[in-house]
Amino acid sequence: MIDLDRLGFARSLLDRHGAERSDAAYTAALDDPNAAIVLVAGDTPVLQALGEGASAFLDRSALARLPQRAETVLLGTADGRPVLAVLAAPEAAALYAEDSAFQVLDLRSVAVQGAVPAPELGALATAKSILSWHARHRFCANCGSATQPAASGFRRDCGACGTQHFPRTDPVAIMLVTRGDCCLLGRQPRFVAGSYSCLAGFIEPGETLEDAVRREVQEEAGVTCGAVSYLVSQPWPFPSSLMIGCQAEALTEDITIDREELEDARWFPRDEVRLMLERRHPDGLICPPPVAIAHHLVRHWVEAGG
Amino acid sequence: MIDLDRLGFARSLLDRHGAERSDAAYTAALDDPNAAIVLVAGDTPVLQALGEGASAFLDRSALARLPQRAETVLLGTADGRPVLAVLAAPEAAALYAEDSAFQVLDLRSVAVQGAVPAPELGALATAKSILSWHARHRFCANCGSATQPAASGFRRDCGACGTQHFPRTDPVAIMLVTRGDCCLLGRQPRFVAGSYSCLAGFIEPGETLEDAVRREVQEEAGVTCGAVSYLVSQPWPFPSSLMIGCQAEALTEDITIDREELEDARWFPRDEVRLMLERRHPDGLICPPPVAIAHHLVRHWVEAGG
Repeated sequence: MIDLDRLGFARSLLDRHGAERSDAAYTAALDDPNAAIVLVAGDTPVLQALGEGASAFLDRSALARLPQRAETVLLGTADGRPVLAVLAAPEAAALYAEDSAFQVLDLRSVAVQGAVPAPELGALATAKSILSWHARHRFCANCGSATQPAASGFRRDCGACGTQHFPRTDPVAIMLVTRGDCCLLGRQPRFVAGSYSCLAGFIEPGETLEDAVRREVQEEAGVTCGAVSYLVSQPWPFPSSLMIGCQAEALTEDITIDREELEDARWFPRDEVRLMLERRHPDGLICPPPVAIAHHLVRHWVEAGG
Repeated sequence: MIDLDRLGFARSLLDRHGAERSDAAYTAALDDPNAAIVLVAGDTPVLQALGEGASAFLDRSALARLPQRAETVLLGTADGRPVLAVLAAPEAAALYAEDSAFQVLDLRSVAVQGAVPAPELGALATAKSILSWHARHRFCANCGSATQPAASGFRRDCGACGTQHFPRTDPVAIMLVTRGDCCLLGRQPRFVAGSYSCLAGFIEPGETLEDAVRREVQEEAGVTCGAVSYLVSQPWPFPSSLMIGCQAEALTEDITIDREELEDARWFPRDEVRLMLERRHPDGLICPPPVAIAHHLVRHWVEAGG
């Protein structure tokens, strides 16, 4: 079983009220003085510091020091309390960074450090993805005119040509390729030293999940895969991916590395991968931490081997 | 087992050459006189009529009668032959409709009728999705300037602000909800008379596949679901979805229909659903045809029941 409490962003306490986003009775919550605020300055969350750790939810009064807000989205409710995502300029982070009542921390670190309770991570992920979409989609791709937020912030409408635009979610196939008692892991140049992970890539128009898995492995490592099985999914808010985690059976062994994508790719025996997961590998090789879906794909396979 | 040859758009003979799309040696294929052409006029494919049936692939000479092309994309190769997707104006369909060498047929009908071989449907789906994206994304969402195609047509670049734009693929959760020997099917007002299908909806930013399944069923039918299992995926080029097919176990039975989405939703016993699949139901109720992933989700469950 995958431990969803350790998989980053996989838990969410948001009730999204998807069918009510254009109802006046619901959108009144945008002005609710008791609403919980998820504040993102540029790309960086501003957290409420607590005695131990922090919370993703600020009181509305925390917005008073903002000279202006760039965007406000009604994410839904949490335990009946409205939750608003608020986008501020990157510079606004400085207004909170020096105040011990707050913690300004990039979202990857929030997840890796477990700085907020796991169910709040889902709300942070949703806030960051949708606010990032607003920030980068203020104009109509169809006609070039400026667009306006609608549907509680889950849509942007073009007054000029009438097109409705919805937030993007980009599906990504991420896969552990196995062959007998070995699995294929690769490393990109940007990875921390010694880290090896699963291969991954965006699913393209006109492609099944399974074909995308096989194509990516062929392109990046020159390995042909057969059967593909789904394991688990994860929202990944950098900026707005849906990671779809799979296991794939290799039909071939020879590796041809795509040097544009990968610095290295190798077959690792299961016992060696176990040491990498446990961070006890003699050469210091490691696998990604539990916040990443790759960790769970690897762990699932290692544990299936006894 | 799911029969992928009958599931629409699930087979593709395209080799996408994803890593080569900006290489001059590869993009030279855009001018290859022997390239196969997938022609879409507005939203409608133009097929090559054959003695029996048709092919998605035209010879390049078929383009001679076009006054102009709106967009050309190098989709990849099929059996070593370059495959180009060409977008023409909707009116261009008339240039082929009267010529018995061609067949002008909307893409749904192409799939339902099996008008082209199954592996060519994947190329048609890719062509339609990516050409539709070009047609509706000629301007930069970030700054409003006109954009230009790049990377063999798999990207659009903004010369003004430098943003690179990639084709969208929208992940959709579609699920058969089951409870013991019954399953939950609903109908939208736009369905053909008597047709009942699986519930479905777009996966939102910050959401796992499994949470999206549970949310959609709760929103549309008021039924609470527990365990979710993945079954099969399908590209759905209307305009560019990835259907992610699941089965979900209901934890509750009472149905509250969202009348904005559904005209009806009911629990159907397995034996009744079998008759609907076989089109022998006494009241004329039916399930979607095999081109739709819903058909396979339902059939898989019916057959699992013996």
